[in-house]
Amino acid sequence: MTAQAPPVTVEALVAALPPGMVVTEASAMEKYREDFARDGSAGTPIAVVRPETAAQVQTAVRWAADHLVPVVARGAGTGLSGGSSAVDGGITISLDRMRAVAIDPQCQVAVVEPGALNADVKRAAAEHGLWYPPDPSSYEICSIGGNLATNAGGLCCVKYGVTSDYVLGMDVVLADGSLVTLGGKQIKDVAGLSLLKLFVGSEGTLGIITRAILRLIPLQTPQATLVSTFPSMAAAAEAVVAIRGAVRASMLELMDNTTINAVEDWRSHGLDRSAGALLVAQSDASGDAQAEVDLISAACTAAGGEDVYATTDPDESAMFVSARRNALHALEARGSVLFEDVGVPLPRLPELVQEVGRIAERRDVEIAVVAHAGDGNTHPIIVYDGADDGAVTRARQAFAEVMAAAIALGGTITGEHGVGRAKRFALPDQLGDDVLALTWRIKDAFDPHGILNPGAVLPPRLSAKKGER
Amino acid sequence: MTAQAPPVTVEALVAALPPGMVVTEASAMEKYREDFARDGSAGTPIAVVRPETAAQVQTAVRWAADHLVPVVARGAGTGLSGGSSAVDGGITISLDRMRAVAIDPQCQVAVVEPGALNADVKRAAAEHGLWYPPDPSSYEICSIGGNLATNAGGLCCVKYGVTSDYVLGMDVVLADGSLVTLGGKQIKDVAGLSLLKLFVGSEGTLGIITRAILRLIPLQTPQATLVSTFPSMAAAAEAVVAIRGAVRASMLELMDNTTINAVEDWRSHGLDRSAGALLVAQSDASGDAQAEVDLISAACTAAGGEDVYATTDPDESAMFVSARRNALHALEARGSVLFEDVGVPLPRLPELVQEVGRIAERRDVEIAVVAHAGDGNTHPIIVYDGADDGAVTRARQAFAEVMAAAIALGGTITGEHGVGRAKRFALPDQLGDDVLALTWRIKDAFDPHGILNPGAVLPPRLSAKKGER
Repeated sequence: MTAQAPPVTVEALVAALPPGMVVTEASAMEKYREDFARDGSAGTPIAVVRPETAAQVQTAVRWAADHLVPVVARGAGTGLSGGSSAVDGGITISLDRMRAVAIDPQCQVAVVEPGALNADVKRAAAEHGLWYPPDPSSYEICSIGGNLATNAGGLCCVKYGVTSDYVLGMDVVLADGSLVTLGGKQIKDVAGLSLLKLFVGSEGTLGIITRAILRLIPLQTPQATLVSTFPSMAAAAEAVVAIRGAVRASMLELMDNTTINAVEDWRSHGLDRSAGALLVAQSDASGDAQAEVDLISAACTAAGGEDVYATTDPDESAMFVSARRNALHALEARGSVLFEDVGVPLPRLPELVQEVGRIAERRDVEIAVVAHAGDGNTHPIIVYDGADDGAVTRARQAFAEVMAAAIALGGTITGEHGVGRAKRFALPDQLGDDVLALTWRIKDAFDPHGILNPGAVLPPRLSAKKGER
Repeated sequence: MTAQAPPVTVEALVAALPPGMVVTEASAMEKYREDFARDGSAGTPIAVVRPETAAQVQTAVRWAADHLVPVVARGAGTGLSGGSSAVDGGITISLDRMRAVAIDPQCQVAVVEPGALNADVKRAAAEHGLWYPPDPSSYEICSIGGNLATNAGGLCCVKYGVTSDYVLGMDVVLADGSLVTLGGKQIKDVAGLSLLKLFVGSEGTLGIITRAILRLIPLQTPQATLVSTFPSMAAAAEAVVAIRGAVRASMLELMDNTTINAVEDWRSHGLDRSAGALLVAQSDASGDAQAEVDLISAACTAAGGEDVYATTDPDESAMFVSARRNALHALEARGSVLFEDVGVPLPRLPELVQEVGRIAERRDVEIAVVAHAGDGNTHPIIVYDGADDGAVTRARQAFAEVMAAAIALGGTITGEHGVGRAKRFALPDQLGDDVLALTWRIKDAFDPHGILNPGAVLPPRLSAKKGER
């Protein structure tokens, strides 16, 4: 656009939707500006739209397309990479009112609106003896739309896979406001290109998902939980590599000493504060749980595990799992945090953990490590004093260095949280120029005017000129 | 191109590659013209290239890009939809010499070249106690490259998923001859758009896969096999729906009376020739196999199953599975065949089976039904006299009508074989104009000159003009 466009006003958008659906007061919009990353990138939107139907999403996107206004889609706002941060002069479409969940037990699918919480889907499925496996630690408060946007993982992934593995169909509103329906309730479908899987993990940059059909499986119940302390994270990581080769554990989680103590400070779980690391493993193989626990136990002992303890008591098991799930909250109580989400090929996990320790020392910041260890996916959480400018700078340096370490070990800057805005600067180092160029070609094919979540995921073009987004 | 291009000669291509790598004799090229669909679409290529390295694939594609020559990628040629049929005036790149398989047991991955057979990967993994689950019936003779190109399924999918669920990384040669590397050995990775999953199932229309990193899991062993006859396919399909709700069976396969008799004619397996349908189910839950078999058995009996028989004998189990795997070969011995691959939401399976019966009657052709029943994915095989023009016409009518029936039941024209050339005419009826338009935008972004597998998957553009591919 070379000609000066007239200033955009939201009056037409307000008029096109039911009263109260378009929020424009600054104070009312405030809670829709940031996500849990609080990465400082959030701008000030000109409106927040809270649609109740896909047609209303279309109305908002059509209006935005007509006026070349940026559109940010938002679920529950629990993202950890700034993927739903508001954009200056843009609109945010909050899907928090679209929360319907319908279970089709014969087809073993859930038909879900994007604002439904992950836990809503799990609960509705359980009423039919069914289960939706993907389980981010935040599953009680995060939305399915956000899970789809980031291809969210969780604790069960080590055996049951990630969000993408459970998506059978979806409705998506495209950048021009049109709506397409992909897939359906059929389990296997290879008719045409896999647009479905492309939208999963696209973080609102290609379209806005307004409905999803999710695969369910018969409910699996944890049968036994094993915990083992280790003198070091490196020793625990060695145990994880050995366990993965022997058993399909249904959970394989790791906490370092800092995390253990943070969790104990926050709420006592009776964990050993002196342990270098704590492994929490589960088996859900009902007839084989004892055999699996025996194999896990042997692998722990061989790698230097101490206090290896197994239980089949559901309450006791839930307590250990809860300690792991609450790690982020517990660490947030210690100061400002930067959430890492790096992953490496499994056998490189000990090296990554050691390198994170070196970075913490070099940058003089605290980095607590919790890990979906069985998948080689770790969350080094950088805890720092947000009021100390020097500490802020050092924390950001550490954040970048942890990602660089993961890339150097053949891994990824994000295993399940997404790139968002917090990590886009590091994406070229992982993907390289050719893959980035290909990614931009897809983005342009879907969103030629660049209105969908600008500033998220994709770094500026190599050939970007001044003023280009 | 409005100017008349000079005729393309392959001399430069021949010169650019090692002696003997470019085949141009018509007789030597003949076996690379068709795949197992033998759908009549195959043209005559100007050369067949048999590279040994990715760099040689790049050389061939660069030459083709320079001369706007169509490029068809080909694995073992066992495709069932004409996806690797040769194109008049094009080159076929046969990947049958690129067959390396390297297992990384610590990472639990296989690094595989596209010409390696599915069975090669399984055997190499088994040496390390590991397993690559996807198992098309043709797994002994089909290539991993073809499996990736079609997102192949198989018998294990009902519990273990399809090819796409096991792909962690790949190298792809793009339409301009450049090579990109996607993903890696890390298990979870959401950095950037999921180009990886987009290439899976793209049937050579977006790029040529020259290497893949495939996820492996610890070897799972079938513990018990259950067979049950039923008076009808509809009754058997009802049993399948009930079983799926109760148990995660590791195999759930169905054959109709025609298939049973074809298999018995071909080689005696001791099957009951009078049965309306035969269900073959397996459990691989080692400690729970008996409990699972009991649940499966009860569901069969409740749905009218007769002669319910369970065995834990590996040889006996293998015989039943072999009967199912050999169904296609057995049916091919009866005449010319058209391979269907339709799928529906699971509870619609009985209706689909009934509708297939009505189509067979109406068109006076024999349609045998074998099914990956647990996934609602069926292979109605149309058997006809290829020397009878009337029968050929009626068979083709039935082929189209079976796909229409699947679409009408909310299903798909292809669950695992791919669209290829045999089914592209039916794709618009399933996807609709908007999704097709989006698909063309992706195709154009990856392959702006349309040289990659023209005529496969995508039907002509809505706005196609005369002379446009």
